[in-house]
Amino acid sequence: MSLHDDMLVVGQNAVEASRKMAQLASRKKNAILMSMAEELELSRDKLAIANKRDMDEGRNAGLNSSLLDRLELTPSRIDSMIKGLQAVASLGDPIGTQISSWLRPNGLEIVKERVPIGVIGIIYESRPNVTADTTALCLKTANAVILRGGKEAFHSNMAIAEALQIGGEKKGMPKNAVQLIDTIDREAVKELVQLTGLVDLVIPRGGETLIKAVTEMAHVPVIKHYKGVCHTYIDKAADLDKAKAIIVNAKCQRPGVCNAMETLLIHKDLLDTFVPAIVDVLKAEKVEIRGDEMVKAKCPDVQSATEEDWYAEYLDLILSIKIVDGVQEAIDHINKYGSKHSDAIISADAKAQELFVRDVDSATVYINASTRFTDGGEFGMGAEIGISTDKLHARGPMGLDELTTYKYIIYGDGQIRI
Amino acid sequence: MSLHDDMLVVGQNAVEASRKMAQLASRKKNAILMSMAEELELSRDKLAIANKRDMDEGRNAGLNSSLLDRLELTPSRIDSMIKGLQAVASLGDPIGTQISSWLRPNGLEIVKERVPIGVIGIIYESRPNVTADTTALCLKTANAVILRGGKEAFHSNMAIAEALQIGGEKKGMPKNAVQLIDTIDREAVKELVQLTGLVDLVIPRGGETLIKAVTEMAHVPVIKHYKGVCHTYIDKAADLDKAKAIIVNAKCQRPGVCNAMETLLIHKDLLDTFVPAIVDVLKAEKVEIRGDEMVKAKCPDVQSATEEDWYAEYLDLILSIKIVDGVQEAIDHINKYGSKHSDAIISADAKAQELFVRDVDSATVYINASTRFTDGGEFGMGAEIGISTDKLHARGPMGLDELTTYKYIIYGDGQIRI
Repeated sequence: MSLHDDMLVVGQNAVEASRKMAQLASRKKNAILMSMAEELELSRDKLAIANKRDMDEGRNAGLNSSLLDRLELTPSRIDSMIKGLQAVASLGDPIGTQISSWLRPNGLEIVKERVPIGVIGIIYESRPNVTADTTALCLKTANAVILRGGKEAFHSNMAIAEALQIGGEKKGMPKNAVQLIDTIDREAVKELVQLTGLVDLVIPRGGETLIKAVTEMAHVPVIKHYKGVCHTYIDKAADLDKAKAIIVNAKCQRPGVCNAMETLLIHKDLLDTFVPAIVDVLKAEKVEIRGDEMVKAKCPDVQSATEEDWYAEYLDLILSIKIVDGVQEAIDHINKYGSKHSDAIISADAKAQELFVRDVDSATVYINASTRFTDGGEFGMGAEIGISTDKLHARGPMGLDELTTYKYIIYGDGQIRI
Repeated sequence: MSLHDDMLVVGQNAVEASRKMAQLASRKKNAILMSMAEELELSRDKLAIANKRDMDEGRNAGLNSSLLDRLELTPSRIDSMIKGLQAVASLGDPIGTQISSWLRPNGLEIVKERVPIGVIGIIYESRPNVTADTTALCLKTANAVILRGGKEAFHSNMAIAEALQIGGEKKGMPKNAVQLIDTIDREAVKELVQLTGLVDLVIPRGGETLIKAVTEMAHVPVIKHYKGVCHTYIDKAADLDKAKAIIVNAKCQRPGVCNAMETLLIHKDLLDTFVPAIVDVLKAEKVEIRGDEMVKAKCPDVQSATEEDWYAEYLDLILSIKIVDGVQEAIDHINKYGSKHSDAIISADAKAQELFVRDVDSATVYINASTRFTDGGEFGMGAEIGISTDKLHARGPMGLDELTTYKYIIYGDGQIRI
């Protein structure tokens, strides 16, 4: 069979499995997740062997240390996968809940009910834990999942997926509810994202290059975020102590993540005193500063920001700083250079807050808080499958609800249309 | 400039206009819609001249009578466009409404608020009224709209769009909030649906060929329905008088629409008496019947259904009838041959109803009612931009809410992540 035919079978099997998944009661789905956790526990040796193979091949292929780190399945990372499955099992089940209902004058009762999406494809890179984490969320919401991990993690992913399948099937998981694509042929990704009518949604997780490639090839819906170029705007009416704490937190607490701040916008009235002060604070935190001309004039030892800096997602202890005329220039800058992810205003001025919140076209907009809170856990969702900077279906942190769709059920008593 | 550059400018202008649209209060948006209605009223002569030109060119190009009918802008169709704009103005405004909100233990208040999607592209065929109808819905929800109508209706669409622009701008509509693509070059559609980062959503409206082409070319999200192959399943526990009335209604009340029934599934226990009776009733309504072998054996004068009949959207007084073993076979048939649009079960058996509702994978599932109710108006939405058989973002009839997305607004007091 050709790769095309192989992938068609994968898709058809997933559809069949998704129909059976949708019939499972919550306790059945939870038992499947708990059994998967148990099977991972029993498979620690197998996982270690498979991961060693990937690590050895990775070292031979000359992967850099950061890639090798992401690839490694340490015992504590296996613990996390196990705990993740158990945690998702303990969450409430959105499937079957009523979103709304109403009665029409002709007596028809319309019920909008949450149902599974169907078949979800996950395309990811080198972290093998994604295999277990995303499977848990997809199965909890009664979807079938097709996994496609990075080729560096091939053996690790195969071992994890096998444990999940064995554990799940022990408790009645439909065959093919979890499928891992067992080829490293890159064409398989293209085939997967073009399975119109079989795959309902693809979620790519990884770097911008992967996500762009998936999106451009896809004929099925894709939810994604390319990057997080997050801003904090310090208004002239800001509480400057709070501003300082928020700036340091947003930039330094974990600089390598998508909700960390990359550009700081400061009101021009704060140039003389606040700017030099915050530059000193950030330098003490080992942050490299790239300032516009006004910042440079005030603090001659910072680097000059170029046009590219305003677009940059550093994911590192680097920060660009720009002086703005006021909230409108801050908004315009963010809408031009930002990534529609997370942006904050620090201000006590209600009018400035209101303009910022209305006009910044981002998934998550903060007033007087750090952008680092854009995260399913911090939002109280219990779990997160990713963050969307798209506007359709899901925006911002995506939890279990975002892995569902709805169906209209109409209860009648013989009604016909007149 | 190249077509690519032209379309880029169209997209950029739309983004700019959408930002301004999002700032308008409800009463401002309503005044714009009312003023558009007034301007259409004043433009009746211009519209008639433009439409005559399209009709003349259409006749010369040999368009068939059904196409010419769709193309014609009669005075009563102009009335409908005017009333449509006024009706949308009078609807409630979803923008700015709070979908949900909650407080986190750290004091952060998270508000999920309905906001415009941004820029919406509408690609449609020969009916020029779509120009006004979709513009009304997009502007009410503070989106900018890019319109691309069929080439047959080019002059009519230009005249309508011009009236809408003049009327809207009289009441402060941002420039470029309504743009009609002013070339009939087919490549423009491709450029439009690939304006990633500028166009947020494309809704194609028309035949399956158009929709498939748009979907395959698109890099931006598309919401659509290809066709409506709607089923009614008559269970052995059906009230047969109600069943008869529903069957006749679903097939005959308006056979040319997507929510009309195309295939009737009947429980085998009803073969001896109900099947001949319903066949007679349908024949009296001038319906051509295509039956499976069991139906043929009972009613030898009906035609034989082929495999293609089960997939067919007749949009005409033609009906395929199949005898099934029970609710499970009905479900399997619908999931295999259907279009995920609207399907009904007629039964008094709670167990059969439950299985049907859970396992039929369609946007709208009916118990004891006609599938003809799948319609924004019948659902009480006040307006409809289309029906989605997709599962992401919107499913079933789409009203104003489905032309919105949401934004998370987080109110803090200096919170940082620990």
